[in-house]
Amino acid sequence: MGSPFNLILLRHGQSVYNRERRFTGWADVPLSPEGEAEARRAGRLLLAGDLEFDIAFTSLLKRAIKTHWIVSEEMDLEWVSVVKAWELNERHYGALQGRTKEEVAAEVGEDQVRLWRRGYLERPPPLDYDDPRHPRFDGRYRDLPPDRLPSAESLADVSDRVVPFWEDEIGPEIRSGRRVLVVSHGNTLRALVKYLEGISDDGIAAVEIPTGVPLVYHLGPDLRPRSRRILSGGEVEGV
Amino acid sequence: MGSPFNLILLRHGQSVYNRERRFTGWADVPLSPEGEAEARRAGRLLLAGDLEFDIAFTSLLKRAIKTHWIVSEEMDLEWVSVVKAWELNERHYGALQGRTKEEVAAEVGEDQVRLWRRGYLERPPPLDYDDPRHPRFDGRYRDLPPDRLPSAESLADVSDRVVPFWEDEIGPEIRSGRRVLVVSHGNTLRALVKYLEGISDDGIAAVEIPTGVPLVYHLGPDLRPRSRRILSGGEVEGV
Repeated sequence: MGSPFNLILLRHGQSVYNRERRFTGWADVPLSPEGEAEARRAGRLLLAGDLEFDIAFTSLLKRAIKTHWIVSEEMDLEWVSVVKAWELNERHYGALQGRTKEEVAAEVGEDQVRLWRRGYLERPPPLDYDDPRHPRFDGRYRDLPPDRLPSAESLADVSDRVVPFWEDEIGPEIRSGRRVLVVSHGNTLRALVKYLEGISDDGIAAVEIPTGVPLVYHLGPDLRPRSRRILSGGEVEGV
Repeated sequence: MGSPFNLILLRHGQSVYNRERRFTGWADVPLSPEGEAEARRAGRLLLAGDLEFDIAFTSLLKRAIKTHWIVSEEMDLEWVSVVKAWELNERHYGALQGRTKEEVAAEVGEDQVRLWRRGYLERPPPLDYDDPRHPRFDGRYRDLPPDRLPSAESLADVSDRVVPFWEDEIGPEIRSGRRVLVVSHGNTLRALVKYLEGISDDGIAAVEIPTGVPLVYHLGPDLRPRSRRILSGGEVEGV
């Protein structure tokens, strides 16, 4: 048995938009072949580390769901229950979705792009309410109250949906003794890590979550971290 | 839009044990490559027939779960909620699990094998309580009361777990207006079809459910079938 843990955070493997350096947000793009390989590697690392989980949470986006499937398959844990929730979706990147970072930087400058990407309160330009890509036209969000449907989100906005979801849905599972896997997204996991580790609004700018690398936490009964390991593969030989 | 429906029953694609003509039951064997292709074809047929579903149910066995994954991927419905339940597992085939039908027939005769496979009340010889393959040693069943863990099941035994699950979990979803996909197993679906269509204990002997072929039902408010279609592919061109 490995050391104690009760929470694994995992960012999905590389998507085709990650590969093309495009803003992705709620655009539902698939994993790249490299991203599928990253997911498979994450599953093998978790298996080698005896890091079996009792319940999984994912977003409603296929790059996270497929990452969860591949990890489950590698660990022979296909049967474990999964909760899929819009609250674990990536940050909505508004009108930037689908555009490359270079393209946008050429238009508004590197500094503005850095603020949108790393700042806590900056909200990118919104998606037009009548844009066919607006979430109100997507059946998977039909049960959301219209005022919860974002046209663009800051990291603070993401925190406002992720933290209550953590408190109401994920935390109680951990309190009841279950080991939880959360497969989610770069900014969503930044918001969650900020909350769990008590990182400041400024401090979170420096935090980046790599694709396909499990973060393994042991949380105490107060759900505060007792330890954190980054399962990058160096510590597990032959994988 | 196709004709109205609110229930799709789908037997998983061919497993490696199906291919080898082995009794499978609760043995958790993967799909064969042919079975994955069957699942993909089922997904394309459902997509071509506008047969999108709002919630999915599967067993705890990977051949059903993987079939659901492949269907979801083909239909771009990865985000739909899924409930995984032991009550939708295949019939437990007791000590026959893993043995070939020929091997068993050579031992006990074709007639006995036919009774075990097609009869309603016949229970195959049980798996030894200390056999490492007994479900009590399998973590996925740890929340079941010990007296619910089978060592072998007749079709009547399967009915005793599937029908209450239908009444308590699946039926209410349909009543509340959701379109339901159930991905399950040959005998489990025989038990469910027997109940839904009011087939007699003798009559069910003649009913066989092919792998990877969606059965599409329109149930009335009483949850009794108004219509049933077999989506074998003949009615959808170019798939």
